[in-house]
Amino acid sequence: MANEVILLDFWPSMFGMRTRIALREKGVEFEYREEDLRNKSPLLLQMNPIHKKIPVLIHNGKPVCESTIQVQYIDEVWSHKNPILPSDPYQRAQARFWVDFIDKKMYDAQRKVWATKGDEQEAGKKEFIELLKVLEAELGDKPYFGGDDFGYVDIGLIGFYTWFHAYEKYGNFSIEAECPKLIAWAKKCLQRESVAKSLPESEKVTDFVTQLRDLYLAK
Amino acid sequence: MANEVILLDFWPSMFGMRTRIALREKGVEFEYREEDLRNKSPLLLQMNPIHKKIPVLIHNGKPVCESTIQVQYIDEVWSHKNPILPSDPYQRAQARFWVDFIDKKMYDAQRKVWATKGDEQEAGKKEFIELLKVLEAELGDKPYFGGDDFGYVDIGLIGFYTWFHAYEKYGNFSIEAECPKLIAWAKKCLQRESVAKSLPESEKVTDFVTQLRDLYLAK
Repeated sequence: MANEVILLDFWPSMFGMRTRIALREKGVEFEYREEDLRNKSPLLLQMNPIHKKIPVLIHNGKPVCESTIQVQYIDEVWSHKNPILPSDPYQRAQARFWVDFIDKKMYDAQRKVWATKGDEQEAGKKEFIELLKVLEAELGDKPYFGGDDFGYVDIGLIGFYTWFHAYEKYGNFSIEAECPKLIAWAKKCLQRESVAKSLPESEKVTDFVTQLRDLYLAK
Repeated sequence: MANEVILLDFWPSMFGMRTRIALREKGVEFEYREEDLRNKSPLLLQMNPIHKKIPVLIHNGKPVCESTIQVQYIDEVWSHKNPILPSDPYQRAQARFWVDFIDKKMYDAQRKVWATKGDEQEAGKKEFIELLKVLEAELGDKPYFGGDDFGYVDIGLIGFYTWFHAYEKYGNFSIEAECPKLIAWAKKCLQRESVAKSLPESEKVTDFVTQLRDLYLAK
C-alpha cells in the first residue's frame, strides 16, 4: 500500500516541529500543509473535530492527533530505521515521563515570559528558568536526553529552542548563561538534517512572537 | 529476577485506580502503600521528586511516575497476558488519543461539578456532561472503547465512575439519564475482577468528596 502522508501544521508550532522531525528521521515523504489558525481549513476541522488543533498527521486518509501520539505512531509504523523511543520498557517510561513533563509545564511557563509584563512576567520568568534547570539536570553530561542517541525527549524539546531568542528578548535574560549544557545540546541537535530542516529561523519566530505579544498586551 | 512491585497510592485517586487495574489484569502481585497526601512519605518524595504526586509504581526499586505511563510500562513489561494497548499502531494511537483527552479535560471539568457553586458550577456541569457525551459517542455500541476487549481507554476512564454518585449528588443530575450507554459500559467493566478489586465503593468516595467540598466552599 502506498503511503500518503499529509501534515496539517503551522510553522512556529513547537508541537508541529516534533512531528516534522519524526517523519524526517524515518525518511518519510510527506505533504506539508500550512494552516491559517484564524481560518482553519475544513480538512483540519474534519480530521480533528475534538480539539480542532494542529498538528494533524493524516496517513492514508486516517488522522492521528496530538504531537506526542504522532511521534509514537511514526516510530511504530516506520520501525525499520532510527528508533525514536528506546526499546527497554523502563527507558521508554522515562522518555515518556520527560516529554509529559515538557507538555505539562513548558508551554504555560514560556508563554508567561513573553505574553505578560510586570510581576506576572517576573514570576513566569523564574518558573521558566527553573524548568529549564530541571531539564538541564536531567540531560547532565549526556550528548542527548536518552544517552548517546537522539530520541523522543530530544524531539519533544528541541522545537522550543527556536523560541529561545524571543524569551531572551522579552524576558531580558540569557538562557545560555543559565543553562549552557542545554544550549550545547540544542546546537548538537541542529546538526541533524531532520532537525535543521524542520525548525524555522529564530528571527522569524521572534517576529511572530512580537506580533502576538503586541496583541496580548493591547488587551 | 524477582519482581518487587510497590504502588504508592491514595484510595480515591482515579489515576491510582488505573495502575491497580493494570497490575491486576496482568496478575502482578504488588504491595499497596496508602499515602497521606497532607504528610507525604519520604519514599514518595524520593521516588517522584519532580511532581511529588501519587501514584508511583516502584518496580525493583526504580520508580515509574504518571498513571498513563505506568499502564503502558506494565503492558510492556508483563506482555505475556491480557494486552492493554492494541497491537495495531493506528488503534494504539486512537487509544492514546482518548486517554489523553480524558487527562486533558475530565479532571478539571469534574472538579467544577462538586467543588464550586452557582454559575461556575452550572457551567462546569454543562461542560462535564458534554465531555461525557463525547465519550459516549466514541463508545457507541461497542462493548468496550477498543471494541470487544477491555483495554487502555477503559482503564483510563473507569476510575471516574466511582465518583459519579458524588457528581450526581452535588450537580443534581442523573448521568444515566444523560449517558445510558456509558453507565452500561461501566457496569460491564465492574464485572472484571481486576476492576472490582481496584475501585473503592461509591459511597465512600462520596463521603470523601463531601469533606473536600466543605473544605473548598468554606474558603
